[in-house]
Amino acid sequence: MPKLFIPGPIDVSKETFAAMSQPMIGHRGSEFERLYASTQPGLQELGGTTRPFFLSTSSAWGVMEASLRNLCVKKVLTLCCGAFSDKWFDVAKSMGLSAEKIQVEWGDAIAPATVRAKLEEGGFDLVTLIHNETSTGVMNDLVGLAKVVKSFPGVLFVVDAVSSFSAVPIEMDALGIDVLLAGVQKALALPPGLTVFACSEAAIERAKGQANRGYYFDFLEFAKNAEKHNTPSTPAISLIFGLQHILGVIAAEGALNRYARHAANNALIHAWGARHGFKNFAPAGNQSVTLTCFHTPAGFDQGSFIKTLKAKHRFVINGGYGKIKGLTFRISNMGNETAATLNELITAMDDVLE
Amino acid sequence: MPKLFIPGPIDVSKETFAAMSQPMIGHRGSEFERLYASTQPGLQELGGTTRPFFLSTSSAWGVMEASLRNLCVKKVLTLCCGAFSDKWFDVAKSMGLSAEKIQVEWGDAIAPATVRAKLEEGGFDLVTLIHNETSTGVMNDLVGLAKVVKSFPGVLFVVDAVSSFSAVPIEMDALGIDVLLAGVQKALALPPGLTVFACSEAAIERAKGQANRGYYFDFLEFAKNAEKHNTPSTPAISLIFGLQHILGVIAAEGALNRYARHAANNALIHAWGARHGFKNFAPAGNQSVTLTCFHTPAGFDQGSFIKTLKAKHRFVINGGYGKIKGLTFRISNMGNETAATLNELITAMDDVLE
Repeated sequence: MPKLFIPGPIDVSKETFAAMSQPMIGHRGSEFERLYASTQPGLQELGGTTRPFFLSTSSAWGVMEASLRNLCVKKVLTLCCGAFSDKWFDVAKSMGLSAEKIQVEWGDAIAPATVRAKLEEGGFDLVTLIHNETSTGVMNDLVGLAKVVKSFPGVLFVVDAVSSFSAVPIEMDALGIDVLLAGVQKALALPPGLTVFACSEAAIERAKGQANRGYYFDFLEFAKNAEKHNTPSTPAISLIFGLQHILGVIAAEGALNRYARHAANNALIHAWGARHGFKNFAPAGNQSVTLTCFHTPAGFDQGSFIKTLKAKHRFVINGGYGKIKGLTFRISNMGNETAATLNELITAMDDVLE
Repeated sequence: MPKLFIPGPIDVSKETFAAMSQPMIGHRGSEFERLYASTQPGLQELGGTTRPFFLSTSSAWGVMEASLRNLCVKKVLTLCCGAFSDKWFDVAKSMGLSAEKIQVEWGDAIAPATVRAKLEEGGFDLVTLIHNETSTGVMNDLVGLAKVVKSFPGVLFVVDAVSSFSAVPIEMDALGIDVLLAGVQKALALPPGLTVFACSEAAIERAKGQANRGYYFDFLEFAKNAEKHNTPSTPAISLIFGLQHILGVIAAEGALNRYARHAANNALIHAWGARHGFKNFAPAGNQSVTLTCFHTPAGFDQGSFIKTLKAKHRFVINGGYGKIKGLTFRISNMGNETAATLNELITAMDDVLE
């Protein structure tokens, strides 16, 4: 199979697959509780929090929807800057919630001042943000946005860090993030199927007053079970074995080194693009360090480039998403990649361009 | 690690883990669509349906809750005969739905006549059943119950076949089942984290008129994506590779042979119990063929038996669930077990008993 440099899923190491292939254990016994507990310090370090991390057997949209169901009592403000963040507004509407959005052009970041102005209108009790918008390669100003949201008492802040978690520092507690969630098939380099998330005390308190939360994604069920290092429903045990493994890899590397490696690898792709005149779709200052989204230049046969790269060199990159499909292309540098493996990709891309 | 003979998760074969360790593929491309499509004939044969099977990245409770959210407009009748079927009533209440239940003693099966009498009271549009109640070892009379439910026009029938699917024949279309769902960590012998389910046309039609379905478990999103052999949200790719593998194993064995093997293996455990005077918790005629639930006889130190079996022979069986914990113990014969492997377990249990 070709190796993936798409923005998730990405290449999974042999060692991770080996960890995932450990024999099954019962999920209502001490072996599972030890496994669950073992994931906490690593996740908490990466999320910058002392709060417990919950393990949801779902992809990220499950927890994104759950955040609305558990926490939106009055009205949610969704910050929309690409395919995934835009969709969060549609999901809120599909649940019958009162929702408004701030919509910027795809490729732009959300400006904190705009959020402040909107929240000053009043009536909101929840804000959703996608930190790193995977469809456009925009990394929003998490610190600036958190500062604004937290200046409005009673407004909770949900942050999807699906494609930034473990690639950049995130300080949940210091920033006052109320729900921090991440998929595992992005920078954590696991197969998809598991979402990790943490909730602030304020989020848990809000959920207590919320009727009709259901069961599968009930934050209070997650909190109750986390106290005994367990999950409300049968967990994706193999993926949690994989998570335990990759957190060990991250601890050995050091989180700061991991962040630096992602930045350095990302810079290699930026430099490659600059050499060939490919322009970044995201503005300077808001460019993701886990993936790069390039404009497709006029006259450049993107489809043929991607196809040849795959057929000849067995590397897969990705041709835009949603309404900018074809107009952009994206290269991921998430996970376990090194300068050496990025340079293999770069050499191959250069070969195809020649 | 000890080998599991608990009612899920169970032993996963090396070959399944190898299949799950295939390199990642993008989930929005033709490779994934082929993978998805490849699972359909096998699932449809096992479920006795021509309807598409949806692949939900969740454990079964996600789809059990989703069935209520998508399909209950008026009032749901939950058929309760054990820990899991009882809980379905609580979940309905947690969603703010109008719900009533038929509650029988744990260890008893649901009588079709009782269901008929209740439905004749009117006002219901949905019935939920757990075919094989994993907490008590009771297998309900699916054919008889389906016949009753289908005699009430406008009442849809949701069947959880979590621990019976692929172990006994299930004829979704012939019985008029509206939602058939199964976890993969039971008789399919995969790690947990994926639920397969199919919906009748009537179920899809009902969902269309249902407001506030949300997104993650929206049956219409599943149906729309299934048309192009895909899923609404990022799928658990490794588990689907595993599913593809095990469906190949089942096709090679033959579904009928697989059913016969489960029945024969189950009979070995029943015979072992009879030899030692252990009485079945489930009544004759309603005993599961995938697991056996025995009464704990007076004076029998169940905890010590289970503990020694694990420590000395590396086999794990299970000591009751919920309010009958300690009062019963359970032995699974699901999945890839043979007479030879069951006899290894039996020899070990005999050794501990001596």
